[in-house]
Amino acid sequence: MDNRKLRVGVIGAGRIGRLHANNLKNAVPGAVVEAISDVNLLSARALAASLGVSKVYQDYQQLLDDNEVDAVFICASTDMHSPISIAAARAGKHIFCEKPIDHDLDKIEEVLEAVKEAGVKYQVGFNRRFDRNFKKVRDSVREGAIGEVHTVRVTSRDPEAPPVSYVKVSGGIFVDMTIHDFDMVRYLTDSEVTEVSVFGAVLVDPAIGEAGDVDTCVINLRFKNGALGTIENSRQAVYGYDQRVEVFGSKGMIHAQNETANNTVLMTRDAVTSEKPLWFFLERYNDAFIQEAKAFVEACLQDKETPVGAYDGLQPVKIAIAARKSWKLGGKPVKVED
Amino acid sequence: MDNRKLRVGVIGAGRIGRLHANNLKNAVPGAVVEAISDVNLLSARALAASLGVSKVYQDYQQLLDDNEVDAVFICASTDMHSPISIAAARAGKHIFCEKPIDHDLDKIEEVLEAVKEAGVKYQVGFNRRFDRNFKKVRDSVREGAIGEVHTVRVTSRDPEAPPVSYVKVSGGIFVDMTIHDFDMVRYLTDSEVTEVSVFGAVLVDPAIGEAGDVDTCVINLRFKNGALGTIENSRQAVYGYDQRVEVFGSKGMIHAQNETANNTVLMTRDAVTSEKPLWFFLERYNDAFIQEAKAFVEACLQDKETPVGAYDGLQPVKIAIAARKSWKLGGKPVKVED
Amino acid sequence: MDNRKLRVGVIGAGRIGRLHANNLKNAVPGAVVEAISDVNLLSARALAASLGVSKVYQDYQQLLDDNEVDAVFICASTDMHSPISIAAARAGKHIFCEKPIDHDLDKIEEVLEAVKEAGVKYQVGFNRRFDRNFKKVRDSVREGAIGEVHTVRVTSRDPEAPPVSYVKVSGGIFVDMTIHDFDMVRYLTDSEVTEVSVFGAVLVDPAIGEAGDVDTCVINLRFKNGALGTIENSRQAVYGYDQRVEVFGSKGMIHAQNETANNTVLMTRDAVTSEKPLWFFLERYNDAFIQEAKAFVEACLQDKETPVGAYDGLQPVKIAIAARKSWKLGGKPVKVED
Amino acid sequence: MDNRKLRVGVIGAGRIGRLHANNLKNAVPGAVVEAISDVNLLSARALAASLGVSKVYQDYQQLLDDNEVDAVFICASTDMHSPISIAAARAGKHIFCEKPIDHDLDKIEEVLEAVKEAGVKYQVGFNRRFDRNFKKVRDSVREGAIGEVHTVRVTSRDPEAPPVSYVKVSGGIFVDMTIHDFDMVRYLTDSEVTEVSVFGAVLVDPAIGEAGDVDTCVINLRFKNGALGTIENSRQAVYGYDQRVEVFGSKGMIHAQNETANNTVLMTRDAVTSEKPLWFFLERYNDAFIQEAKAFVEACLQDKETPVGAYDGLQPVKIAIAARKSWKLGGKPVKVED
Repeated sequence: MDNRKLRVGVIGAGRIGRLHANNLKNAVPGAVVEAISDVNLLSARALAASLGVSKVYQDYQQLLDDNEVDAVFICASTDMHSPISIAAARAGKHIFCEKPIDHDLDKIEEVLEAVKEAGVKYQVGFNRRFDRNFKKVRDSVREGAIGEVHTVRVTSRDPEAPPVSYVKVSGGIFVDMTIHDFDMVRYLTDSEVTEVSVFGAVLVDPAIGEAGDVDTCVINLRFKNGALGTIENSRQAVYGYDQRVEVFGSKGMIHAQNETANNTVLMTRDAVTSEKPLWFFLERYNDAFIQEAKAFVEACLQDKETPVGAYDGLQPVKIAIAARKSWKLGGKPVKVED
Repeated sequence: MDNRKLRVGVIGAGRIGRLHANNLKNAVPGAVVEAISDVNLLSARALAASLGVSKVYQDYQQLLDDNEVDAVFICASTDMHSPISIAAARAGKHIFCEKPIDHDLDKIEEVLEAVKEAGVKYQVGFNRRFDRNFKKVRDSVREGAIGEVHTVRVTSRDPEAPPVSYVKVSGGIFVDMTIHDFDMVRYLTDSEVTEVSVFGAVLVDPAIGEAGDVDTCVINLRFKNGALGTIENSRQAVYGYDQRVEVFGSKGMIHAQNETANNTVLMTRDAVTSEKPLWFFLERYNDAFIQEAKAFVEACLQDKETPVGAYDGLQPVKIAIAARKSWKLGGKPVKVED
Repeated sequence: MDNRKLRVGVIGAGRIGRLHANNLKNAVPGAVVEAISDVNLLSARALAASLGVSKVYQDYQQLLDDNEVDAVFICASTDMHSPISIAAARAGKHIFCEKPIDHDLDKIEEVLEAVKEAGVKYQVGFNRRFDRNFKKVRDSVREGAIGEVHTVRVTSRDPEAPPVSYVKVSGGIFVDMTIHDFDMVRYLTDSEVTEVSVFGAVLVDPAIGEAGDVDTCVINLRFKNGALGTIENSRQAVYGYDQRVEVFGSKGMIHAQNETANNTVLMTRDAVTSEKPLWFFLERYNDAFIQEAKAFVEACLQDKETPVGAYDGLQPVKIAIAARKSWKLGGKPVKVED
Repeated sequence: MDNRKLRVGVIGAGRIGRLHANNLKNAVPGAVVEAISDVNLLSARALAASLGVSKVYQDYQQLLDDNEVDAVFICASTDMHSPISIAAARAGKHIFCEKPIDHDLDKIEEVLEAVKEAGVKYQVGFNRRFDRNFKKVRDSVREGAIGEVHTVRVTSRDPEAPPVSYVKVSGGIFVDMTIHDFDMVRYLTDSEVTEVSVFGAVLVDPAIGEAGDVDTCVINLRFKNGALGTIENSRQAVYGYDQRVEVFGSKGMIHAQNETANNTVLMTRDAVTSEKPLWFFLERYNDAFIQEAKAFVEACLQDKETPVGAYDGLQPVKIAIAARKSWKLGGKPVKVED
């Protein structure tokens, strides 16, 4: 890598924008935060001040027009992901976009086209791929440690359900939450999902059901290479953020456990207790967020492919749409659109 | 318990018959092996000699006619389970019958009726319920440790696939192998399966596919109480007999791991290695076989209900039949017959 | 092994005598309990009745005079171990003797001589050698899995302190409790202890101190082959019977954990809890007791060396005596008598 | 904390100086690296350039004379720790000093005096106290989770022996390596060591013995509060950096395990393998180094006591000197100088 730094503009100064901006400044040596934009100018200014960044914009287009910005992190609200992506591509900026690109397949296709045309880098924020445990599972699978993949399993349970107000605009559990798991099974198996079958239920909060969504589901998957898979989701695991994967194959099995705050074990007359899984996703995937930013910056600086391209942003949405359909049909298997 | 011993006749001197006969003699204080029968008289004689049992019969009816026999263990071939059950009930013997009672629902119903009419005890050989780990999971669930059950998961993989000759007469994976898991989910959740959806595949041995069966499957379940479930099966886990369960609920989660030959951990320059799961089901469930026999003997001697009654033998077969249908329909959800 | 059974006389019908008698009857196929003796004739009779044994003696010498007894299990009080051992040897019986042979080295030497002269088998009841975990550690060490042994560690904590009345006649912690650990380090390293240094303390119960003993100690060891070792003892681990070993060497390390009633893990909002170590030594070493009896019976029937000979009974007592001396001297290193 | 930043001068631009300088810049928000000094001016310049620091000095006294420096990190060679500490105290700078302060007790006392007189903050680099696992053990002990402490155990094995050239100038294993463990037992028990007894051996590399040192040792400890302890050291654990602690008390036990690169488990026909302990101390204690710097900066900015004061730098050296004496005397217990 040469000595040049990637000058990054961060679009959106909310929770995830602040996270990325901080990581870029403190933990990603190849990057420098050049500018920050937010429709809420105060938020942008506060973040900029805390990081010692001088350029602040209210309109993301201004940031895109800034010639000293090489790349952008799109951390705006979900509905703005695709329009900003397209505008950024046209402005010739490399793009890191939070997931999902869009809930609408056509809009994602437009993004793909704009990116292709502009020849810019594009990376989607599927941060879990950069978790050290899941990455090790994937690497082992790739290296043939378990032979040919027969089944893959993702257990993914949030520590608490989001407010119903959020559920209503989230696009539903499949595109909001399970989408990470759809990405994960593609990542772990290196194969595409061709068919899904979903049993859903409202067991955590009736209000989620009234909002037209489910909070608990089990999902069967079929892959192009013949493998099978299962995903299990819950919106509320009271003991913490439960994130585990397992891949089983002709020569063995590999699985990854939860992360905990420490590895102590306490034994008393009453019980043997150890730590609960980490509760908060920012803590659980803290390092993964740093690693994905590093990977993006490296891809830009060294003109390499990003590890999670625009196509990787498209596929999970397709699976999510099929999953939603299967759930609506009471579990009937639904093919994933090609 | 009074000092009287339960006099048991063992019908069938094959692998499982020998197992039960040995356990009854050496590990079940309340029982005495009174007689042994097998169509292969030599087998019956050999077993009887090794145990110091004097009565040997070729025809199971002779054993049923023996007034000094209080109860029978039916360890004959599967197709004989229901006819012998009926005959034994009519002879007034208490009955322990290996699983499955039958592949045919009507025949199982006949058994239920005969047993009811005769007023004898009936226990089905779902030995895994007596595994100390699974039992602890179930007890914790019952005691409310995890609140209301939301999902249940059974991972059940055999160490190696049976010969295709066996597969052909087995009735298929659902009635032969998954039936244990169908029993397990009922046991763990205390609720009935109402609907199943199955994705199956032939990934271990093409010959199994040619025999009209699958060797790998993922199964979604829906329960009467609203809970969901998943079962994952493979005919071949090269690392050993993989038997795990997990129950997740409103107040927590509990899971049980595999058993190993010992708990040592070796660390060298190359790796950290620990023991593989126990390979052979007779070793893995060694103690569970003893516990189920003890429970049966106790129920007979103390005139209590057996812990796994005839109805528990019926339900898993119903689920297996629905599962087979779902698989044939490419994963379409199928209701379990009431 | 031929078909002949080893006819065993059990001397002492207390807790440990009953344990061995039951195991011999139910779990050791090569043995038959021929006779039982106890100074308390009622105890002997009760045990004999429960096992269907017809010969009962009050005086152990009568049992030794019985020509139909091939071997004896000496389960009398500790002070009778050496006199009965000598008498049994002179009567030509093979001998299984509970630990310790004696607290007095001269008396043990007499036993060794008598056994040698009579040419009978002798095994000391160091049951922990037969624990599946510790045995695996020892086997791995022997096979060179960790290279040359550098250090060995035994953690050995009882679940609760014995009554002070027992402590007073126990001979002290080193000969009563640590003796098992002295045997264990010899077993694991295949080397002799040459020097010990002990720091002791009274932290559990002042009454133990008043009785002239300690309830907590840490022990440094030096071995003939140059290796070092540590033992840590407590009379009271409130969470259960804590029994672990670790051997460290030039090529790696191997350690064995505690055993638990089951391997389930429960996660709730409050904690992640798993099972405590088994509490009771009869439960913890249940299988080890069976295995040591099997090994003794096999050695007798096949005229092989017993796995824990009279010399193995002598050495730990020597170490215990040195340990006591070191403790009395405030931790000064003391050589183990050759 | 106010908005003022602590302006830090880093003295010594070797491995540990670079580590601290980088952490101060990237991971400790309250600090700014103001100046860097090293007798090797090129090293100082290179480090300053990489961090964007403009002030570079060859002589540490110049750095101490800089009025824009509030505090120093002393990362020079061990023999310079005490003279620089004294000079820095006289210059009115807060001081973070790498361990050990000195091998000579008198010189440490001089440092203590100078620090006291100047009224500056002083922290010693016992980074392991800031490890999340050990800290949790200590916190639990403090909160009474295990009742009164009866025994403490530290297992501390390096992944590979240092070069003999280093061993010769290291001051010996006790002051060079075990000193961390002496600090750890004080930290975990909140009590002072009063007496040590050491068995040492040369098992890893004969050249270490020829240099007058040992590479393997077991240490018994006695504490002021009556508790006992053990430390086990090896200069070479081929499987990685083995760092574990265990504290046992009247109400229970708590222990902390090794850290690994990830928590995956791979099961194949051959073995069940998991990750080895992290190999390199900079990786193993990466976060602990950050936490100790944060704690120091916070203490300076908020005028609080540092968590590891000068006295904490003195005590482990006293214990190390006693340990060395005990080893020389073949394990004879030696009192720690008051």
